Amino acid sequence: MAYIEEKVFPVEALREFCARVFMHFRLPESDAAQAADVLAAADLRGIDSHGVARMRSYVDLLSEGRINPKPQVKVMRSTPSTATVDADNGLGLVVGPRANQMAIELAEKAGSGWVAVMNTNHFGIAGYYVLKAVAHDMIGWAMTNSTAIVAPLWGIERMLGTNPIAIAFPGKNEPPIVIDMATCTAAYGKIEIALRRGEKIPAGWAIDNLGRVTTDPADVLAGGALLPLGSDRERGGHKGYGLAMMVDLLSGALSGANWGPFAIPFALRQTIPTRSVGKGIGHFFGAMRIDGFIDADSFKSQVDDYIRVFRATKPAPNTSGPLIPGDPEREAEAIRRKNGVPLILPVVNDLREVSKKTGIPFD
Amino acid sequence: MAYIEEKVFPVEALREFCARVFMHFRLPESDAAQAADVLAAADLRGIDSHGVARMRSYVDLLSEGRINPKPQVKVMRSTPSTATVDADNGLGLVVGPRANQMAIELAEKAGSGWVAVMNTNHFGIAGYYVLKAVAHDMIGWAMTNSTAIVAPLWGIERMLGTNPIAIAFPGKNEPPIVIDMATCTAAYGKIEIALRRGEKIPAGWAIDNLGRVTTDPADVLAGGALLPLGSDRERGGHKGYGLAMMVDLLSGALSGANWGPFAIPFALRQTIPTRSVGKGIGHFFGAMRIDGFIDADSFKSQVDDYIRVFRATKPAPNTSGPLIPGDPEREAEAIRRKNGVPLILPVVNDLREVSKKTGIPFD
Repeated sequence: MAYIEEKVFPVEALREFCARVFMHFRLPESDAAQAADVLAAADLRGIDSHGVARMRSYVDLLSEGRINPKPQVKVMRSTPSTATVDADNGLGLVVGPRANQMAIELAEKAGSGWVAVMNTNHFGIAGYYVLKAVAHDMIGWAMTNSTAIVAPLWGIERMLGTNPIAIAFPGKNEPPIVIDMATCTAAYGKIEIALRRGEKIPAGWAIDNLGRVTTDPADVLAGGALLPLGSDRERGGHKGYGLAMMVDLLSGALSGANWGPFAIPFALRQTIPTRSVGKGIGHFFGAMRIDGFIDADSFKSQVDDYIRVFRATKPAPNTSGPLIPGDPEREAEAIRRKNGVPLILPVVNDLREVSKKTGIPFD
Repeated sequence: MAYIEEKVFPVEALREFCARVFMHFRLPESDAAQAADVLAAADLRGIDSHGVARMRSYVDLLSEGRINPKPQVKVMRSTPSTATVDADNGLGLVVGPRANQMAIELAEKAGSGWVAVMNTNHFGIAGYYVLKAVAHDMIGWAMTNSTAIVAPLWGIERMLGTNPIAIAFPGKNEPPIVIDMATCTAAYGKIEIALRRGEKIPAGWAIDNLGRVTTDPADVLAGGALLPLGSDRERGGHKGYGLAMMVDLLSGALSGANWGPFAIPFALRQTIPTRSVGKGIGHFFGAMRIDGFIDADSFKSQVDDYIRVFRATKPAPNTSGPLIPGDPEREAEAIRRKNGVPLILPVVNDLREVSKKTGIPFD
């Protein structure tokens, strides 16, 4: 395993830097702070691929005028518990939190709230959003579609994004249960890491451009694709494929955004699909009041009980037993709040580049 | 592969037989017809494990007085878009459709409707319910928890059910997209089939009672467990585990039913958990009006387009290309409506047993 050089930064320094960069591109101060907060949350929670590592791409898009720094989010349609908003091509990190807040407000009155978002861009980590609902004693849901990189089971073209789904349930004395998962077997970031380290990837993660199972990460970049959760028919690859399609239909087709292979790419260097079937990409947020179903306090006590029962499961050989979804991210956050966020050198260099371009000091 | 003897029955004969048997156990005529309809749908759609093959277990429970033939379903709590109902220990095949209908009615007024059900039993196939919402131009959701047979990632005890999730989207000229999947890698029925045929099972489906990956189906019965979708950490087993937990929390904990290892078993011969944390098992139904988000007609046209785009994906080697979720079930239904439903001999013998016990003619 090749050693990868890292440099550590206090999260506040990263947050401050990002907010100032966003303001440089004419985002209002509160929006810039909001966007930086979503990125900082990713870095704190150990989801390195979705934090400041993406700043370079956001800056590329903003400086090319491909993202609207001052979006007017418009409600296109609504009922007491549902709405669709046109995000006016705003930064997903800004319009995502607004739409999520709308879902929470609908739920306050109607018991649940569901907001589909069209004409938007990459929104950061799905886990950020669902924790907002949890703070209101609600169950939070968040999904988004994204650039196609995943093949359907039995297909060899990139037809679906990594299309994450997140859902969170509040505990009382225990922390919340936070499920936050891409619907493919392994995240694209893991392919990049294997490439950088000169390592093979496990069979089941990806296929090459002829649809053959591959263990060479370079094959993915050379026109291959990731595989849906379950990998192949025998292990339930049709299920991961179905889940990815569910996220795509709710986020993309239901909102009026692009879907499937037509989802707008996030990075400048990626080619724009030749066909357009909607506007931008799409998100889908949900919030359900727990007391719309059951006493909130007793539910949260049950979640505590649930967590303890699952932690007490007899461990599998060579493991310390089952984790509760959200454990790894929470542990990363505790460590990184104290010790800072480690960034690999390529990311540090990207941020230095952004600093040079914008004049905002970094380092 | 050992040959398994089959006998073919017209679906109407099976439906009629089941309805009469349910009436024998004092179910009102319309409830008996409803229950038989859910079972017939499973057999038609090729989900043999969930159709008349389960009649024997329903009869066992009814004759032991473990299921209430005349349940009074009671709304425990509600908001404009949510409700929890106590199903009064009714047959899931009867109270499930009622609760699902409530979700549809809530959605008519509030845009979406979400109903958690406690104190219920096995409800048949999840796909049955979501197709009802589709007929109203809604997106349908259905989930249920069930007897623990699945191990959490890194655990070796049976802690979760196969906990299916279904969701369906209507097309305009194309058939609906129907995603209907258990959250484990392979259904329990596949273990039984392998046992009966004297075949091995693939690695990744199950562990033995010491938590070791096994290819011997007998190990599952001897205290082993099924694995969540994704199978192991490398292939995303934590994701299938998270999904199973999501279904369990929404169906079980949110409704006030039993959850996790405490879910009430379906069959008589299974031991009842020593601890009770709620009533019966739980379901969770949802319905979302499409026109609460976007014009329903244009959405359905997009679904048609979606289906055609995905069908046109370049096929993987030795396959005829990606299927659309719901294809296999629809194809089975077309064939079985015409040619009848093939039942394996052990199921035929079970039904003959039921016939003998109830005096309702069969064969």
